Amino acid sequence: MPTSLTATGPEAPGRATALPIHPPHRLLMGPGPINADPRVLRAMSAGLVGQYDPAMTDYMAETQRLYRGVFRTANEATLLVDGTSRAGIEAVLVSLLEPGDRVLVPVFGRFGHLLAEIAARTGAEVHTIEREWGTVFGADEIEAALDAVRPKVLAMVQGDTSTTMCQPLAELGALCADRGVLLYSDVTASLGGNEFVMDDWGLDAASAGLQKCLGGPSGSAPISLSDAAVDVIQARRHIEAGIRERDDEEHGTRIASNYFDLGMILDYWGPRRLNHHTEATSMLYAARECARLLVDESLPGAVARHALHGRAMTEGLVALGLRLFGDQSHRMHNVIAVHIPEGVNGDAVRSGLLHDFAIEIGTSFGPLHGRVWRVGVMGYNARHDTVLLTLAALEQVLRAAGTNPTPGAGVGAAKEVYAQ
Amino acid sequence: MPTSLTATGPEAPGRATALPIHPPHRLLMGPGPINADPRVLRAMSAGLVGQYDPAMTDYMAETQRLYRGVFRTANEATLLVDGTSRAGIEAVLVSLLEPGDRVLVPVFGRFGHLLAEIAARTGAEVHTIEREWGTVFGADEIEAALDAVRPKVLAMVQGDTSTTMCQPLAELGALCADRGVLLYSDVTASLGGNEFVMDDWGLDAASAGLQKCLGGPSGSAPISLSDAAVDVIQARRHIEAGIRERDDEEHGTRIASNYFDLGMILDYWGPRRLNHHTEATSMLYAARECARLLVDESLPGAVARHALHGRAMTEGLVALGLRLFGDQSHRMHNVIAVHIPEGVNGDAVRSGLLHDFAIEIGTSFGPLHGRVWRVGVMGYNARHDTVLLTLAALEQVLRAAGTNPTPGAGVGAAKEVYAQ
Repeated sequence: MPTSLTATGPEAPGRATALPIHPPHRLLMGPGPINADPRVLRAMSAGLVGQYDPAMTDYMAETQRLYRGVFRTANEATLLVDGTSRAGIEAVLVSLLEPGDRVLVPVFGRFGHLLAEIAARTGAEVHTIEREWGTVFGADEIEAALDAVRPKVLAMVQGDTSTTMCQPLAELGALCADRGVLLYSDVTASLGGNEFVMDDWGLDAASAGLQKCLGGPSGSAPISLSDAAVDVIQARRHIEAGIRERDDEEHGTRIASNYFDLGMILDYWGPRRLNHHTEATSMLYAARECARLLVDESLPGAVARHALHGRAMTEGLVALGLRLFGDQSHRMHNVIAVHIPEGVNGDAVRSGLLHDFAIEIGTSFGPLHGRVWRVGVMGYNARHDTVLLTLAALEQVLRAAGTNPTPGAGVGAAKEVYAQ
Repeated sequence: MPTSLTATGPEAPGRATALPIHPPHRLLMGPGPINADPRVLRAMSAGLVGQYDPAMTDYMAETQRLYRGVFRTANEATLLVDGTSRAGIEAVLVSLLEPGDRVLVPVFGRFGHLLAEIAARTGAEVHTIEREWGTVFGADEIEAALDAVRPKVLAMVQGDTSTTMCQPLAELGALCADRGVLLYSDVTASLGGNEFVMDDWGLDAASAGLQKCLGGPSGSAPISLSDAAVDVIQARRHIEAGIRERDDEEHGTRIASNYFDLGMILDYWGPRRLNHHTEATSMLYAARECARLLVDESLPGAVARHALHGRAMTEGLVALGLRLFGDQSHRMHNVIAVHIPEGVNGDAVRSGLLHDFAIEIGTSFGPLHGRVWRVGVMGYNARHDTVLLTLAALEQVLRAAGTNPTPGAGVGAAKEVYAQ
């Protein structure tokens, strides 16, 4: 037996060119990614099965069912796009929008710009309205813009991590339905930590990622599509050469991407099981476990958990002498921005936290870069111990940076929230 | 302390809606995906670190270095696309091709059709030449087509799993260089199990996946780009609104995808570390471990291992009375197709193997669907025990299906190969 040639055989000495993965411990209290739930990491180490194995197609069906619970929808077309949350956004936009279609994108932070930019690459006519960072839109502003632009799709993020704001969506579904507009929201930053009720609110499309309140690693994008959205996509249905059968009809403007062609991805997840990509099985295991844990906890329970720990962190940050950024009545529960105090080097404080306490917090993008810190309390890290540890360490680092926080004030304020 | 509200708190009884992941054991001896190496699965369960943590950027740099060893290239632009192997194909094609560009795609199986179809969606003018499934192209045929079409890019798969054929590429680099054509190959099915020497052969772009000879799960696509390919991409450089700075220049026809814009992905992996997607950290851990194991073994060593076990499986299948499909002098080492014997129900045999022995083999697509079985010997499953077990089980199932294999002939023939 040529055991020396097998993959499990001994390694030749001196050949090792890199060490096995062994990352340092970090407590990730920034805007995401955060530490994945250990149960999600364990799910990913499960063995693989074949792409059409009954065990695999059962897991796919269960994943769909669980994400209907997470998105709070009855949409049959609820599935995973194999890529990061940005892949989910692009799949929705490139599948819904044809060149020349009008799309309205209300922008209140970096990720609004991202939706506009992805939409523009589909060849759509992109109309934006903008709000100052740290604020959200009123339904009346969006209604006026819908009437002025008369778009095919209204696309906006629910929570924009760049500003921590959470856009109210509940009234927009009716405004869109009255005008025959499809409503799409990217809920990557908010889902699981803030109320989101896809069907009650009348959304036609939603996309997410695992690395925020869902408690998983980046790399899989759950999405859900209403029947109306599916109809738009199926009107552009094409099946790729090599697996097309004689009676498959072809029609409509072909979607400009193969990988993100949701018509084909629906055929893969649907009863026909038509081969498309090779499903990223380990990431599907992770995505399924994220949803399983959330549905077990109940979505309202998870939202309440994020609200509680977010409030405790907020009170603690204020008690440390930090000033909150943005309209607090519209803040996401799971991420809080504070102004970096005058005279303090924001990056030095972040480095000190990381170096001495292995705790990561973030800054932001564009106009807020270096002006705010962003602190996340989400997913597996929405816990009291993480909140208290972060506040205790931050107090030390702030003192070293020359500010004068009242000793114990941050932790004390958070404990008061928990005692209520 | 509100422990009942923490993510680690006890679960409310009766809420569980799905069981934890616990897939059945399978030995995946089809055309891929295959069982991931346990070391790769373990790497994925490592804790996450922040996106710009020094530990993370070090892992990214190491991953790049290791994949230079796998692709056998000095290309600085060697990195991962966050998606399945198909995502890597689309990233290369949409970044290299502008609408109206000519691309030549020699097609000798399903995955050639896939390259043509992805290229067509970029708006490129796609020219194909076709060969009967089970054969490969001669360099002279490709040279003649290059002269007739005068494309910007020659795009072809190295190994097409649908037919098991492995296209010789070594002579094509010079033909392309003489004509100013960029040479791209999708090496997903072949890399690590068949010779591939990117720089010596003069390739400008290559893309792969983890789920074949690399021994990982689907979901990450290693790619490499020559300086010439990078120049083409950088000539179309755009930075997205929201993170653009005042002195960033914009030029060229914008790439039609944001997610697959390799210019932006290069900025993310390069020294500027400009934010793009949130890197799929667990899949990066997996991809890095796949490369680490291959580079440790040495690429020629891995190719020799696939050649040995592929030969043993081939001899065993023949000894069981099965007739090989396709031009054996151009077969990939890692996947073997055999004709399904007259009168045998191919799917019943596959089901029997899966049900009784937990072993999966495949059939194929399009013209070969139901006509051949495909047996894979790759990655972690390129071992003598997997070969002998598969042959032993197949003998049983073939006998039950009414054929009359000589008892012990399959295992015996494979053992003879190992004894040589």
